[in-house]
Amino acid sequence: MAAHHELIQATACKIVDQLRTGEVTPLDLLDALEQRIAEVDGAVNALPTLCFDRARARAADLMKKPQSERGLLAGLPVPIKDLTAVEGVRTTQGSPIFKDHVPTRSDLMVEHLEASGGVVYAKSNTPEFGAGANTFNEVFGATRNPWDLSRSAAGSSGGAAAALASGTAWLAHGSDMGGSLRNPASFCGVVGLRPSFGRVAHTPAAAIDRNLGVQGPMARNVEDVALLLDAMSGEHAADPLSLPSPVTSFLAAARARTKPLRVAYSPDLGITPVDPEVAAITRKAAERFAESGVVVEQAQPDLSEAHECFHVLRAFDFAISKAELLRTKRDLLKPEVIWNIEQGLALSVDDLARAEAQRVAMAARTIAFFETYDLLLCPATITAPFPVEQRYLAECNGHTFDNYVEWLGIVYAITLVCCPALSLPCGFTSAGLPVGLQMIARPRNEAGLLAGAALLEDVLGLRGTTPIDPRPAPASL
Amino acid sequence: MAAHHELIQATACKIVDQLRTGEVTPLDLLDALEQRIAEVDGAVNALPTLCFDRARARAADLMKKPQSERGLLAGLPVPIKDLTAVEGVRTTQGSPIFKDHVPTRSDLMVEHLEASGGVVYAKSNTPEFGAGANTFNEVFGATRNPWDLSRSAAGSSGGAAAALASGTAWLAHGSDMGGSLRNPASFCGVVGLRPSFGRVAHTPAAAIDRNLGVQGPMARNVEDVALLLDAMSGEHAADPLSLPSPVTSFLAAARARTKPLRVAYSPDLGITPVDPEVAAITRKAAERFAESGVVVEQAQPDLSEAHECFHVLRAFDFAISKAELLRTKRDLLKPEVIWNIEQGLALSVDDLARAEAQRVAMAARTIAFFETYDLLLCPATITAPFPVEQRYLAECNGHTFDNYVEWLGIVYAITLVCCPALSLPCGFTSAGLPVGLQMIARPRNEAGLLAGAALLEDVLGLRGTTPIDPRPAPASL
Repeated sequence: MAAHHELIQATACKIVDQLRTGEVTPLDLLDALEQRIAEVDGAVNALPTLCFDRARARAADLMKKPQSERGLLAGLPVPIKDLTAVEGVRTTQGSPIFKDHVPTRSDLMVEHLEASGGVVYAKSNTPEFGAGANTFNEVFGATRNPWDLSRSAAGSSGGAAAALASGTAWLAHGSDMGGSLRNPASFCGVVGLRPSFGRVAHTPAAAIDRNLGVQGPMARNVEDVALLLDAMSGEHAADPLSLPSPVTSFLAAARARTKPLRVAYSPDLGITPVDPEVAAITRKAAERFAESGVVVEQAQPDLSEAHECFHVLRAFDFAISKAELLRTKRDLLKPEVIWNIEQGLALSVDDLARAEAQRVAMAARTIAFFETYDLLLCPATITAPFPVEQRYLAECNGHTFDNYVEWLGIVYAITLVCCPALSLPCGFTSAGLPVGLQMIARPRNEAGLLAGAALLEDVLGLRGTTPIDPRPAPASL
Repeated sequence: MAAHHELIQATACKIVDQLRTGEVTPLDLLDALEQRIAEVDGAVNALPTLCFDRARARAADLMKKPQSERGLLAGLPVPIKDLTAVEGVRTTQGSPIFKDHVPTRSDLMVEHLEASGGVVYAKSNTPEFGAGANTFNEVFGATRNPWDLSRSAAGSSGGAAAALASGTAWLAHGSDMGGSLRNPASFCGVVGLRPSFGRVAHTPAAAIDRNLGVQGPMARNVEDVALLLDAMSGEHAADPLSLPSPVTSFLAAARARTKPLRVAYSPDLGITPVDPEVAAITRKAAERFAESGVVVEQAQPDLSEAHECFHVLRAFDFAISKAELLRTKRDLLKPEVIWNIEQGLALSVDDLARAEAQRVAMAARTIAFFETYDLLLCPATITAPFPVEQRYLAECNGHTFDNYVEWLGIVYAITLVCCPALSLPCGFTSAGLPVGLQMIARPRNEAGLLAGAALLEDVLGLRGTTPIDPRPAPASL
């Protein structure tokens, strides 16, 4: 095995320890990544934009500082999703409209991450404006699933997940409105965490009072996700709704592995069809949690208005932020985005009032549910990775969906009720494709979520799934 | 002086100390309040609904607990604004529609305050649905200004402010969308603090993703306001956007009196006419701050879109929450509320997109402004208390306003940019009427705001303005 492969396979927590002792340097890591990307990313297309010159300059600056001032990540490289601005680096949002856009200032999340010792070396691929859960766009093409290159990596943080799974990243930044950190984690066999609103400060974009979209961490195991969440989180003056850092770090919470008192499992949240094989694998994971001594019961909050509610609020967000693009650049938008904006422009205040009331009711029921249960488990995606050419999942288990978003109900319902949630690898289909378990906690309780996830990760014995060489045929476990 | 007058005049911090030593009991305090209300509230009408039986029962329950479990307020009575539900107590929102409404469950803010040792003994008066900054309604009539009973107490937390100023409360709960904690504090010579969004958890009402309205504390001095903010704040599972308590209490921050490095003063935020006498008094307060050794410069962020932006977002909020009432109970709504809802129902998504973009731009400019300045000072209201019969301020300094809300630009502009802000008594007009100085800090920085306000309160020497006997003629200082 080449030297850089050993580095590539290490956990982020271990790499940070090595950075602190001086056993490796940020420049060593960048060299290893550059080699690895050359080996595999031609096939995967997870990181279509690279900025190694900028990264090496930043890493060199960081190494001039004393160890104690290098931040929590101590120089660990992190790719940034291409929806998020990085100063001096092409940031396209997967849109032909912005294919040559180079921001003059980073999003404050990036500035914050860099201040925490993260080194940005690449932009990870995303669908156009993050719309849809299959990562393809007119600018860079499709990102492929490293477990089977003929399959989708899901999305919208598909480049991030595929980079982790193919060993071109130790940690990755992503974002999540309707499941975009959880879907690709599930499809690519990594861990993706959607934090509470405000947990990760970001530059306010189109609106201050919209709160469906958040930024968050992705990694190959729970502790590494917790480490990146620590590095990303914290109050920031420029995000007026950001949360202060917790007193105890998320990594410490994950390491504590505090056992949940009572856990609920739902096969489908009562709102969606689920592929039978995925259902069986996720159910088995819940059963193994129970066998390990955790009380697991089948239960779920009533989320029956989730589809209507999310459809309206998502459309409103698209219209708020992109009505102007529809007017001026319609021919450069993909049909799904046009549809979303037009749905938004057609909304009445009554439609919005109804959706807001539905959301309040669902959130109240979910919060009451978490008085009984510490965690809720369900599938993170309702299907195994589908062919990359398929724009979205049109049908599942005999049910045909109304639109390109509806197959994501099991994740966007949780967005609506403000809960932090993550996708944990929980098994593989008969074709060797990864399946993710969604784990959900009450609002603001990322610490409990990470503790429970680390515990279940131990139980399932899937921690440390090493980076794999991308393969055209199904991987065997 | 009667014994209860001595109690009534004490600060809340002192009363809490006495509760802890056992020198007074919650029942003593309730007796004193009941006597005081009988003396003055017939004229003031600050607390139209009383619940002393409930209060005495709760106080008795509290006293059965050991001292260490009685919470931060240790049994101190607090009135709740009549917009906010208290279980078993008539809660009208100032609306004939709800004139007989008795909630079966309290707002979680009330539950939280009770868990912090607050004892609810009264509901404080508010305009219908909190709309407008003069406290009158069809259910209870007008609240009068204790400094001159012919004058308005402002609003919408007018009952809260008038109770404090007339000695029928030591601390008071209020809420603030477009200035409703600051306007009445200014008119009544007390301190009202609008906290950051999320600081005070509350039961989500019509929408989770609207964030103009907040709940917050009012008191007769800065340290007492800090004490109540400590008791009101903290993360609560049922409010998915609530903030955790800070590591250092707000009272400790106020007591630290950390000196701001650089303070800005603006006579008008560049967006509003101001009555010349009010302008002179607030300028003088800023000058006295400077004379005390603080660097004070004239400066302000660009908030020029505030009127248009707030008009749209406020109308949207009214429509979201009250369109159904307009359809079914129109004849029971006051004309200003009907107008607000109708303005909201007429909005297009484009109008909202424009307003959201204006808000984002103003917030970004304001946050950049706070990189240079620790605090921003300006008038809290643009006029001294006007006659109570006047529904709102229609004209100021030769400028005629477009509607009943626009005279409040100097406070609602600050709502839009997410900053915590308070009104501090800073002087009196020649007619002896109080004038408030608005003090503003960057988002989330209530600690710095309270420290600066406590310092300036010392400089101005107005701390401990004792409760006054309501008077029909102007009070002399």
